[in-house]
Amino acid sequence: MKETLSAAVLLIGDELLSGSIQDVNLAHIAKTLEQQGIRVRETRIVPDIEDEIVAAVNHLRKKYHYVFTTGGIGPTHDDITSDSIAKAFGVKNVIQQSVFDLFKSYLDAKGLEFTTAAQRMAYAPEGAEIIETGGSAIPGYRVENVFVMAGVPRIMQTMLEASLDRLEVGSAILNSAVHANVREGEIAKDLQEIQDAHPNVDIGSYPQDRATSQIKYSVVMVVRGVDQQEIDAVCEKILAACTALGHKAVLAN
Amino acid sequence: MKETLSAAVLLIGDELLSGSIQDVNLAHIAKTLEQQGIRVRETRIVPDIEDEIVAAVNHLRKKYHYVFTTGGIGPTHDDITSDSIAKAFGVKNVIQQSVFDLFKSYLDAKGLEFTTAAQRMAYAPEGAEIIETGGSAIPGYRVENVFVMAGVPRIMQTMLEASLDRLEVGSAILNSAVHANVREGEIAKDLQEIQDAHPNVDIGSYPQDRATSQIKYSVVMVVRGVDQQEIDAVCEKILAACTALGHKAVLAN
Repeated sequence: MKETLSAAVLLIGDELLSGSIQDVNLAHIAKTLEQQGIRVRETRIVPDIEDEIVAAVNHLRKKYHYVFTTGGIGPTHDDITSDSIAKAFGVKNVIQQSVFDLFKSYLDAKGLEFTTAAQRMAYAPEGAEIIETGGSAIPGYRVENVFVMAGVPRIMQTMLEASLDRLEVGSAILNSAVHANVREGEIAKDLQEIQDAHPNVDIGSYPQDRATSQIKYSVVMVVRGVDQQEIDAVCEKILAACTALGHKAVLAN
Repeated sequence: MKETLSAAVLLIGDELLSGSIQDVNLAHIAKTLEQQGIRVRETRIVPDIEDEIVAAVNHLRKKYHYVFTTGGIGPTHDDITSDSIAKAFGVKNVIQQSVFDLFKSYLDAKGLEFTTAAQRMAYAPEGAEIIETGGSAIPGYRVENVFVMAGVPRIMQTMLEASLDRLEVGSAILNSAVHANVREGEIAKDLQEIQDAHPNVDIGSYPQDRATSQIKYSVVMVVRGVDQQEIDAVCEKILAACTALGHKAVLAN
C-alpha cells in the first residue's frame, strides 16, 4: 500500500502477557486511526518493568509518526508508565496542578480521601500536554508524538477520542473483502499477479477454520487501500479468478 | 517473581495490526507455557514485511529462552514467515521432503492438485526440526529456540501441543486472585508493602469497569508465583488489608 501516516501501539502490563486479560484495545485503536489515515505498523506488549517500557517507547517513537500506549497509569505499585515515559524522554515526572485540582474536587465532592498513592495519577512527564476528556476522569496526555492512555477499554476510548484532533489526517484507509470456497494453494498464483499489478493496495488472504469461523467460506481475501475505485477493481479481479477456478465467491462488504 | 524460563511471542500479520482479526493465540500460548514454568515476557505484532520479521526474530531469540511465532506459513504471497526465519538465521529456505511427501499424498487422496504455491508450505529453513503433529496437516517446525506455528488458532494449538516435549520444564506458574470493592488509591499503600515483603510473587492490581466487567467487584488483585503456600499467604494479607479498610473482599480462586 502507498506510504501513509504510521503509528505503533504499546500495550503495557503483565496481565496481557500472562493471558489473564485479553487485549481489546489494539483493534479499537487501529480501526479508529485508520479512519484518520493512520496505520498501525507495529505493536508491542511489555511487562510492568521500567527498562522494558523505556526501551520500547524510545524505539517506537523514533520509527513511527505516533505511539499510543495503554495501561499502567493507575495508583498502584505496578503502575509505572508515567515514570517510564518521563525516563524515556529524559525529563522528570511532575505533578500536573490542573489534574490534581480536578481529581481532588471530584473526590472531595464524594467525601473520599485523596491518598498519596492516588495523587500519583496527577503526575505526568515535564512538558506533557494534558488531553482533557471533559469528564471528571483522569485525562490522558501526550509527550511529543507519544500518547499515553489508560488500560481500561472504556476510559482508553474516551482518551483516544479526545486525542484525535491532535493528529495529522491522511487519506482514510478503506477495505473490502472477497469470501470464497477456494483453497489458498489454488488461488495463490492469481493473487500474486493481482497484487503485483496493484502495488497501491494490500491484499491479504486468510484461511477460515470451518469449525469455528462465522464466515461460511474457506478463505477471506481482504483488499486494503485509500482508493475505493481501485479496491473495487481488485475485488472484481479476485472474484473473476475464483469463478474461473470453478468456485463460489462473493463480495463481502 | 523469581527468575523463570522466559519466552517471547511474535504474532505475524497485517490483519492483526489493522484490527480486522482479533488475536486469541497469545493468551493460549501464555497459559499453556505457564503450566510448564515458562513465562511470556514480551510480545510483538509485526506486519507481513520481511525486514520487520527478521529484526524481531533476531532480537527476541537472543533475549529469551524461547520464541513462538504465529502466522504467515500458508501458500499465498503474504505468507513470508519461513523465508524471513531463514534469513534471520542466515540459512536457505529449503524443501522438506518428508513434509512434501505427506502433503502430496494427502492431496492425491483427495484428487487435488499440488500447486507450486502450495508446495511453498513444504519449505522450512535449512536445519529446521519438523514437529510432526500426527495428522495430515502441515506441521510446525523449530530452528534452534524459535518455534514456528500457524495463525489459525486450532492448528496453532495442535502445533504448540506437539512442541511441548521439546521445552525445558520449570516450576509451573500459579496464581490466585482477590476481588474487592476497594478503590485502588486506598489499597495501593498496603499492596506496595505486601509486594515489598514478598519479592518472590508478583502482585497485579486491575480496576474493573463496572459497566462491562463480569466481575462484580471494583478491583481484581492477582498474585502470581511458583509457591502456592506463599501465594495463599499473600492473598490472606490482601484480604485482611481490604477488611481493615472496611471493604468487602473475597478470594476468587
